[in-house]
Amino acid sequence: MRLRYKPWASDYINENKKYVKLGEDAPAGQWKKEFGNERPIHVEVGTGKGKFLNDMSLANPDISYIGVEVYDSVLVTGVQRAVEEEPDNLCFINGDVFFLDQMFAENEVDQLYINFTDPWPKKRHEKRRLTYSLFLELYKKVLKPDGMIQFKTDNQGLFEYSLESMSQFGMKFETVRLDLHHSEEAEGNIMTEYEAKFAEKGQPIYMLRARFQ
Amino acid sequence: MRLRYKPWASDYINENKKYVKLGEDAPAGQWKKEFGNERPIHVEVGTGKGKFLNDMSLANPDISYIGVEVYDSVLVTGVQRAVEEEPDNLCFINGDVFFLDQMFAENEVDQLYINFTDPWPKKRHEKRRLTYSLFLELYKKVLKPDGMIQFKTDNQGLFEYSLESMSQFGMKFETVRLDLHHSEEAEGNIMTEYEAKFAEKGQPIYMLRARFQ
Repeated sequence: MRLRYKPWASDYINENKKYVKLGEDAPAGQWKKEFGNERPIHVEVGTGKGKFLNDMSLANPDISYIGVEVYDSVLVTGVQRAVEEEPDNLCFINGDVFFLDQMFAENEVDQLYINFTDPWPKKRHEKRRLTYSLFLELYKKVLKPDGMIQFKTDNQGLFEYSLESMSQFGMKFETVRLDLHHSEEAEGNIMTEYEAKFAEKGQPIYMLRARFQ
Repeated sequence: MRLRYKPWASDYINENKKYVKLGEDAPAGQWKKEFGNERPIHVEVGTGKGKFLNDMSLANPDISYIGVEVYDSVLVTGVQRAVEEEPDNLCFINGDVFFLDQMFAENEVDQLYINFTDPWPKKRHEKRRLTYSLFLELYKKVLKPDGMIQFKTDNQGLFEYSLESMSQFGMKFETVRLDLHHSEEAEGNIMTEYEAKFAEKGQPIYMLRARFQ
């Protein structure tokens, strides 16, 4: 991702606490209270500029969406759009996914999205990939037992790795697509910033849906 | 596969019992005795014209190979080559994979190959795909508990289906490659008839290695 440093991002985030929390202030275990309703909770880790979640929250008003992103200069774009559009089912967290279990209580999350995250192709960076076993451990903790993870990427190496890593962790694949945009799941698929760009170039997008049981 | 009917195939197979058995005559539980040694047993289901196993048996003299194929007009090509080259570590079975557990005893097989089998793309033909759960059940029965299955195909739909089917059966993926010929596993990869043709056209070949535990 092109990281453009925005010195004002941190202040903007602190001034719009309705739409974005700092990781340490996330109301773990209290998200339904925070939203004021009993809607299911869907979380995106590595939410970037937030296009996917902003679009999802408009398309599915009966679901509450929360996006976690560590870089404030990136996340602030999604927060700005939320402040403008005022959805009642969207919130962001400016924090590190590594502390996900401090942002959510056990079994608090119904569904989890991982979209076009950094592939970290070097073997020595394996532990930074968001489908590395330590992260899967965190997802398992915060997800309901039958909760689903949906993962999309254009990166072949990361997709191969993730199939291996999730499988060896004991996860089961409900759906695997090696060319999402030419599959039956293309309908209703909401694209991230990257996805739209890659799709224009005709590159295949990989997708899987998996559960821990 | 182009099926050319060869009326003489059945007689040829009956006359060369050293290199090919009928399914009902397969020495289940006695394969090591049949080969006269303690080498590990590797089996290919849907072996077609046998190029893969003929090549593998030459490349790996310390492994005994057995190929199962239901169509005698196809299999006879592989048998002819074996009769000419006289390997001491190769045998074919002319029979239906559906009866695999009558051709091998439980835990008799060390490794199993599934190469470029018919994708049966129509949903109503799912049960004919060689990675359908009923076939996985058979493989699990004849394979040693830590035995591996290696699966190769050029067919995207069949590969997606197989990832889902094997995963839901509880299998774990050790290796997944979405472009085998441009991966580190390309070295030492022995190609089937199809694989060589598809590779020439530049089409990607999919490969996975999986275990039941």
